[in-house]
Amino acid sequence: MRAIEATGNGLTELAVTTKSAPAAPGPGEVTVDMMIVTINPADLLMLEGRYGVRPPAPFVPGSEGVGRISAAGPDVTLRPGDIVMPMPGNTWTEQVTLPARHVVPLPANVDLDQAAMLKANPATALVMLEDIVPLQAGDWVILNAANSAVGQNVVKVGAALGLRIACVVRREGAAQALRALGAEVVIVDDGTGPAPCLPDGAKARLALDAIGGAATERLAAAVADRGTVVNYGLLSGESPRLSAHDLVFRGLTLRGFWLASWFATAGPARIKQVYAQLVAWLGEGRIGAKVDAHYPIERAAEAVAHAAREGRDGKVLITTRFHTGPA
Amino acid sequence: MRAIEATGNGLTELAVTTKSAPAAPGPGEVTVDMMIVTINPADLLMLEGRYGVRPPAPFVPGSEGVGRISAAGPDVTLRPGDIVMPMPGNTWTEQVTLPARHVVPLPANVDLDQAAMLKANPATALVMLEDIVPLQAGDWVILNAANSAVGQNVVKVGAALGLRIACVVRREGAAQALRALGAEVVIVDDGTGPAPCLPDGAKARLALDAIGGAATERLAAAVADRGTVVNYGLLSGESPRLSAHDLVFRGLTLRGFWLASWFATAGPARIKQVYAQLVAWLGEGRIGAKVDAHYPIERAAEAVAHAAREGRDGKVLITTRFHTGPA
Repeated sequence: MRAIEATGNGLTELAVTTKSAPAAPGPGEVTVDMMIVTINPADLLMLEGRYGVRPPAPFVPGSEGVGRISAAGPDVTLRPGDIVMPMPGNTWTEQVTLPARHVVPLPANVDLDQAAMLKANPATALVMLEDIVPLQAGDWVILNAANSAVGQNVVKVGAALGLRIACVVRREGAAQALRALGAEVVIVDDGTGPAPCLPDGAKARLALDAIGGAATERLAAAVADRGTVVNYGLLSGESPRLSAHDLVFRGLTLRGFWLASWFATAGPARIKQVYAQLVAWLGEGRIGAKVDAHYPIERAAEAVAHAAREGRDGKVLITTRFHTGPA
Repeated sequence: MRAIEATGNGLTELAVTTKSAPAAPGPGEVTVDMMIVTINPADLLMLEGRYGVRPPAPFVPGSEGVGRISAAGPDVTLRPGDIVMPMPGNTWTEQVTLPARHVVPLPANVDLDQAAMLKANPATALVMLEDIVPLQAGDWVILNAANSAVGQNVVKVGAALGLRIACVVRREGAAQALRALGAEVVIVDDGTGPAPCLPDGAKARLALDAIGGAATERLAAAVADRGTVVNYGLLSGESPRLSAHDLVFRGLTLRGFWLASWFATAGPARIKQVYAQLVAWLGEGRIGAKVDAHYPIERAAEAVAHAAREGRDGKVLITTRFHTGPA
């Protein structure tokens, strides 16, 4: 079987290598034939050595994907043929054997492209909206970089939760795309004028910042006293900051969000609940992301270069020999 | 009776004016003859219009002081002669009538200078150490601007609570003063070298930042994963910030602290408990601050100018005609 390996430190230091098949599943284990894996910005950062943690090369990158169980060990209720999403990383491989409790079963008729993109961005959106501050239907949430993949998921997940979502983007083109997606409020903010504000003097209980620097501080102006600003990305390359006025006199809190930390602390019941909700919404067409291109695994280097380009319109996915659908 | 009034917008726009005596106390009220009032940095910011909130001029400034009850209305257990600390602001006056539940009774033998400085800085230190994150004896706390009045209180209150306090200061002179105060660890950090760190690789659960800007971020390096950084001052004039690495991957939280917000939310039982603890420690000599000068109320303008000067060594206090002790 084949796997994609990072051989050095950079986007181009990649190889598709042939490896021996994984061990047959033991008690409590399953072997998954991976069908589609996803290229996320976090994977590119990891390849470049700019992520929170990085294994030494060579390593198999990848944080999400979808596959089909090809073998199940004793004491496993999952059966060969079941569609599953592995939760651990190192997904850019054709086959993997792992504990059955580390895969999330998906419906047989699930859209495989969407399933391959379900673990990271939709869960990030749902968990940021549900697990950081208690929000109720009708509450406002404001986010910047709203046309990012996570941002678009926040718009869709927020609508499914009955929240009011205010999107901040830098360009009118991005605003149009979000309005077409059904965003209720879209604010074009190039960072030079007054800080973004909500209609009718409303204030957000939660702000989601993917930019850092002055953008974090600008977003805070739309946040209610004692509200929370969450940073989960760093498009500006500058440290997130809040004014002392907002921190001290208005009681705002600045936190970060990392899905890997959430996995480590949320507990299996909550993790199962989150993905059950996302799968249900996916079936109802409430969530879903665009795909810009599919590449077969042997063209992984092209796929990564494509994913790193500015201006793509959706995710870049990699398919394996086990993906028998249209690609 | 006389009161000090801010007549405009600035440190020099002050007048000592004669006013009619306050109304006799009604049911549940007391009249307090103020003996000593304190000049705090927050008062100076308020006079200059640089504080979180500012009443229109003319107004009576002042946030703390100590006095003696001269009259008590019906249904009040406090008696004339009792020493009390009024909790509301507008303390720079000779007499005030207010609800008895808004004063904290103090022991008859309390040190009046120390009592006049008890409401703000010692309470800020105690509440920041007790009410933000749960700390246990032996836990490390790191703070910058540690030679400020609040900083010195954190050193003393921290010792009384059994915490290990690491002080960060900019100059060796300030370090010596803190060592003389009994500080366990003092780090001289001019902001150009590696970030301050604790001995033996220890990490703090809590960091207290009074500077903002890069100083907030530097302090965070000594904070444990999922720890908290609290900003309560802005000596740099720059917005407090944390790196995305600390926020997202290490799970740090940045918050602000303002004693006025704490008063508004803590509840009477907790407020009573905090001041009972502080009064007990004051009696035991565990806490206490330096006084640089006393001025009689008619020289209030000189007192304010003195308080605004660099390099003073302790607080500047204002005494009234009701202060019969040494001044």
